[in-house]
Amino acid sequence: MRILSAIGLTLCLFSSFVAAQTPMNLMPLPASVQHGSGQLAINENFSVAISGYTEPRLERAAARLISTLARQTGTTFTAPAVDATKATLVIHAERSSNEVQTVGEDESYELTVTPQGAKLNAANPLGILRGLQTFLQLVELTPNGYSVASVTIRDQPRFPWRGLMIDVSRHWLPIEVIKRSLDGMEAVKLNTFHWHLSDNQGFRIESKKYPKLQELGSDGKFFTQDQVKEVIDYARDRGIRVIPEFDLPGHSTSFFVGYPELGSAPGPYSIEREYGIFDPAMDPTKESTYKFLDGFIGEMAALFPDAYFHIGGDEVNGKGWDGNAPIQQFLHSHGMKDNADLQAYFNKRLQEIVSKHHKIMVGWDEILSPDLPKSIVIQSWRGQDSLADAARKGFHGLLSFGYYLDLYQSAAFHYSTEPLSGKAATLNDEDKKMILGGEACMWSEMVTPENVDSRIWPRMAAIAERFWSPQNTRDIPSMYARMEAESMRLESVGLQHRAYYRPMLERLVGSSDIAAIKTLADVVQAPPEYRREGLHNEATGHPYTSLESFNHLADASRPESIVAVRFNTWVDDLVAHRATPAEIAQMRELLTQWRDNDAKLRPQLQSSFLLKEAAPLSQNLAMLGTSGLLAMQYLENGSKPGPEWMNEQAALINSAKQPHAESLLVVAPAVERLVRAAGQ
Amino acid sequence: MRILSAIGLTLCLFSSFVAAQTPMNLMPLPASVQHGSGQLAINENFSVAISGYTEPRLERAAARLISTLARQTGTTFTAPAVDATKATLVIHAERSSNEVQTVGEDESYELTVTPQGAKLNAANPLGILRGLQTFLQLVELTPNGYSVASVTIRDQPRFPWRGLMIDVSRHWLPIEVIKRSLDGMEAVKLNTFHWHLSDNQGFRIESKKYPKLQELGSDGKFFTQDQVKEVIDYARDRGIRVIPEFDLPGHSTSFFVGYPELGSAPGPYSIEREYGIFDPAMDPTKESTYKFLDGFIGEMAALFPDAYFHIGGDEVNGKGWDGNAPIQQFLHSHGMKDNADLQAYFNKRLQEIVSKHHKIMVGWDEILSPDLPKSIVIQSWRGQDSLADAARKGFHGLLSFGYYLDLYQSAAFHYSTEPLSGKAATLNDEDKKMILGGEACMWSEMVTPENVDSRIWPRMAAIAERFWSPQNTRDIPSMYARMEAESMRLESVGLQHRAYYRPMLERLVGSSDIAAIKTLADVVQAPPEYRREGLHNEATGHPYTSLESFNHLADASRPESIVAVRFNTWVDDLVAHRATPAEIAQMRELLTQWRDNDAKLRPQLQSSFLLKEAAPLSQNLAMLGTSGLLAMQYLENGSKPGPEWMNEQAALINSAKQPHAESLLVVAPAVERLVRAAGQ
Repeated sequence: MRILSAIGLTLCLFSSFVAAQTPMNLMPLPASVQHGSGQLAINENFSVAISGYTEPRLERAAARLISTLARQTGTTFTAPAVDATKATLVIHAERSSNEVQTVGEDESYELTVTPQGAKLNAANPLGILRGLQTFLQLVELTPNGYSVASVTIRDQPRFPWRGLMIDVSRHWLPIEVIKRSLDGMEAVKLNTFHWHLSDNQGFRIESKKYPKLQELGSDGKFFTQDQVKEVIDYARDRGIRVIPEFDLPGHSTSFFVGYPELGSAPGPYSIEREYGIFDPAMDPTKESTYKFLDGFIGEMAALFPDAYFHIGGDEVNGKGWDGNAPIQQFLHSHGMKDNADLQAYFNKRLQEIVSKHHKIMVGWDEILSPDLPKSIVIQSWRGQDSLADAARKGFHGLLSFGYYLDLYQSAAFHYSTEPLSGKAATLNDEDKKMILGGEACMWSEMVTPENVDSRIWPRMAAIAERFWSPQNTRDIPSMYARMEAESMRLESVGLQHRAYYRPMLERLVGSSDIAAIKTLADVVQAPPEYRREGLHNEATGHPYTSLESFNHLADASRPESIVAVRFNTWVDDLVAHRATPAEIAQMRELLTQWRDNDAKLRPQLQSSFLLKEAAPLSQNLAMLGTSGLLAMQYLENGSKPGPEWMNEQAALINSAKQPHAESLLVVAPAVERLVRAAGQ
Repeated sequence: MRILSAIGLTLCLFSSFVAAQTPMNLMPLPASVQHGSGQLAINENFSVAISGYTEPRLERAAARLISTLARQTGTTFTAPAVDATKATLVIHAERSSNEVQTVGEDESYELTVTPQGAKLNAANPLGILRGLQTFLQLVELTPNGYSVASVTIRDQPRFPWRGLMIDVSRHWLPIEVIKRSLDGMEAVKLNTFHWHLSDNQGFRIESKKYPKLQELGSDGKFFTQDQVKEVIDYARDRGIRVIPEFDLPGHSTSFFVGYPELGSAPGPYSIEREYGIFDPAMDPTKESTYKFLDGFIGEMAALFPDAYFHIGGDEVNGKGWDGNAPIQQFLHSHGMKDNADLQAYFNKRLQEIVSKHHKIMVGWDEILSPDLPKSIVIQSWRGQDSLADAARKGFHGLLSFGYYLDLYQSAAFHYSTEPLSGKAATLNDEDKKMILGGEACMWSEMVTPENVDSRIWPRMAAIAERFWSPQNTRDIPSMYARMEAESMRLESVGLQHRAYYRPMLERLVGSSDIAAIKTLADVVQAPPEYRREGLHNEATGHPYTSLESFNHLADASRPESIVAVRFNTWVDDLVAHRATPAEIAQMRELLTQWRDNDAKLRPQLQSSFLLKEAAPLSQNLAMLGTSGLLAMQYLENGSKPGPEWMNEQAALINSAKQPHAESLLVVAPAVERLVRAAGQ
């Protein structure tokens, strides 16, 4: 018997993806894993039974386990319904969970697998849902069939609020995207879906009370209330709370298209197509505004059962208020010194309305104000220090800084972002509890239904581990190895984050022959943060809009190149003289492929208007391949290149680091390290 | 200006898949294509307008064109609705089509594309639907954007009945599969969906009058009547008729599970899990049987608007009747000489019921009897001679022989199957018209929702061309080139025939590293016709059932290996001394890949219980690679191998032709030709 700890996992897991196909492919890692001996066979006779407390949701969860397992293994399960004494997996919940899922509700479970069978025990159905996902991750292919190795897992989450926010305003994302996202969330034990339903670029939910909101503010792309109920039920089945966000008083142009009287300018307003921070803001001085909000929030509060209600509150630039004389007059006559005071006043009024409708208000950092009751929750895009300040003042907080999935940052970066770091690490234990967890954010400026899954997954799984697993779970190579295994498995729940790739590459070349474009696309990424928008602006003279066609290389390539991650590791190993012969052979093969790729890709680059812009990237990749191979040769020979060669390579690599086609060749820095090592 | 004829297309189209990405990528080929000069740009400003007759179906078709084009090109179309004078594509239908689509209704259209715009004219919406699909196929990627080359196409179908039958009984296929199949059918101008809704293995539609049919006969897997209406509407939108089939009086065990009194034995009956011809048959002697059928067919006839109604009628082995004394007594007392007479009696009674409910009866060959009215339609699994006999007797006919998609036969074979060949070629013009067309058949013994698309597509597109295009359209290399291009495009309408492959291969190896298993899977096929079932029986000692897990290599591999088709062509070219240097290089690369693949695949073969059985295939492929490379070397050197080497290769290749893992290495015969050429 040995105890698995996350820290104990070593580099070897990552360098061999096959070896990683073991029961350790759990993500998020459980609090405690104790291995036994032998394994439980998973064959067509597999069955599940519920003992103890039951409810339709548990029965559906058991049926869903069977159908996911069927997709995962291709097995036709033929066992008839059996009782608990004969089932392969016996589920036992003590009691029901709360009628409306609450923050901090028990999600713990204990899963015991022996060659004779598996038992999953939990206090309530939430723990069962979490444990079922662990069970699915444990199923492995062996020479003798599918099986689960004997194990005892005792598990519970570190943070009670583990979320994903999806922005459906800037780009419309239909219900299929939402549902499969919820399936993915369930798979990695997330429990909160934050639905960013309105913003300048679109109002995405049906209001029966104020129908012009969706009729004029959505281009016809909105969720009906029936669909919203369907999503809420779908989420509850998966142990996920659903929190709507209506961004107020800024980010609210789409409200004003149908109801211009809510705005601070006379209007008319139209749906915003560009991205950024805009002047329009709700008029916080008119009583009619609050009357509208009371009606609207009342309607929405009745639709969403969750205790929390998100009012946005971020990025009000104040210009809409500055330019309105009666608003300025109101501000001064009420003794306010600036627009921040005015927004605080608005938030206070808003909070009273939210509270009247029995909800707890959530908002971004900007809403923090001593006037608001301590019950509100601050969601921080500013960072851990901001959260720590809020906690010290007695406010609950959620971290989203460091978890923005739209910024093309690495899984390692997100994974290393610790909610209780910075000032938050210095909080006392009581104040630390004020930090409820975090939410990853999928802002949708640059995504479409076609590629959005690839922006969320698999990096979301790494963040989910940060939210669920013990704080000392932080081995990056282990994370990558398990994330890649889980990424493959996540296709079984219907996510399209891997399937989207080939068709988009085929479209770029207009052919099913994608070998060459894939070699290039595998090692490029859009530049991190908001640089892509800037590059587009420079190149085209106009900013990105929501009406753009997102069918370019930067839309097809992944937000993080796993080939680059792997190549980086090989270079590290080579430079540190610990590379295996297999690694060295793989490096050389990859570098050779890069060197020879441009000649193969060139005809396709020239025949596709979508790809012309990528020609410099392709040439630079060939050059990096050549450089890298020569550097390897120097390192192998033990001979040293002259300074002239070194200078030449430095210049070439520097040029290969420049963006083209709104994309970066992310293997350039690793080749640079290789060349430098050759020169030393 | 030049006229494109199918015959004029040459081998070069096939040997270069890239060159095939031209406006000639039409499938089915139109009756007449006249090229112009210049091209029409397809960009974000693309718009469609309807002039002349309009109806909601046409508006939905225009919207569907835009959304398919958006998926096909990744373009965000932003043009507001425009009138006919400004639209890029103007649709003009003269008048409405029939309220219920009829056989032989006008489907002709004329499509004219110039650099200034496109016009699509048709007598009615059916022609418009066909022409819109032609337009979509014409859109091509160029160095300057998407465009359609100038062209005038005048087109109409050769046969009025162009169908696909899908069996949802032997394996349940949910509504998503049916819908995307209809989308694919629309894309290649098919007009008849034949829904095989009942058979021994399952009763798949809700009957409100006789609910035990689905309650006891379906394992809970059936279409509700609401879903049936949804499918019928979906099909009508795409210009497709929907014809239900209830197979009677044999193939009907699933009727008897709920209503055993209908059967010829006392029962009880259970859903059949095995495949083949079984004894149970409806009791044709009891009036209560006809009362039931009157009620049931009345209910179904009201649900399905089409004029035709399929009653199956095939493969009654008579044993159910032989073993029942009252039935035998009835037979003799009514002056019948055998079970065939009894079935003819049953069919006559059935026909009266079908006719009473205002439908025309369709059935398989066996129903042909002089007692039946000339209005019935014979669907022939027996062949063209059978159809010709029927036509001479005045019966309408449909060919399905040669179009069974479940038999792992090549697109070339299906494509070469001509309805008016054999005895049918000798019919006079009037009798030829009795042959209405054909239907491809997807019998579902060996398919699941996961891989069924790959069994239907893209070969269905080649058969659709046989049904639509002029009889002299029969150039096989042209067909393959266009079929491959259309196969890629068909993903835009949602078909999963290419997407299923990678995940199934990943599952076989339990890893995302599928390079080696793909090399093998790319060149294997399940053996043609029903040999796979026989091999399974030999290997396991039990026949295939519907409860089997279909997750093996033979389920993942395609029904036709395109790599093998291409390799065959190269070998032909090499042996005929017309291979290009590029072909020779590609051949050598492929053979080398085969030679080296087994070493790479072996660890995965050994670690997966699903793949152990494939080890001999992998070894044989390595051997074929070695053989082929040596043969090429001999051919290149001009030297001749000795007889010993020749004998050794013959033995090896012969062994490589043996099936393993229910699969054949379909490149073995081409390697054999190569080796023989080296020896000459």
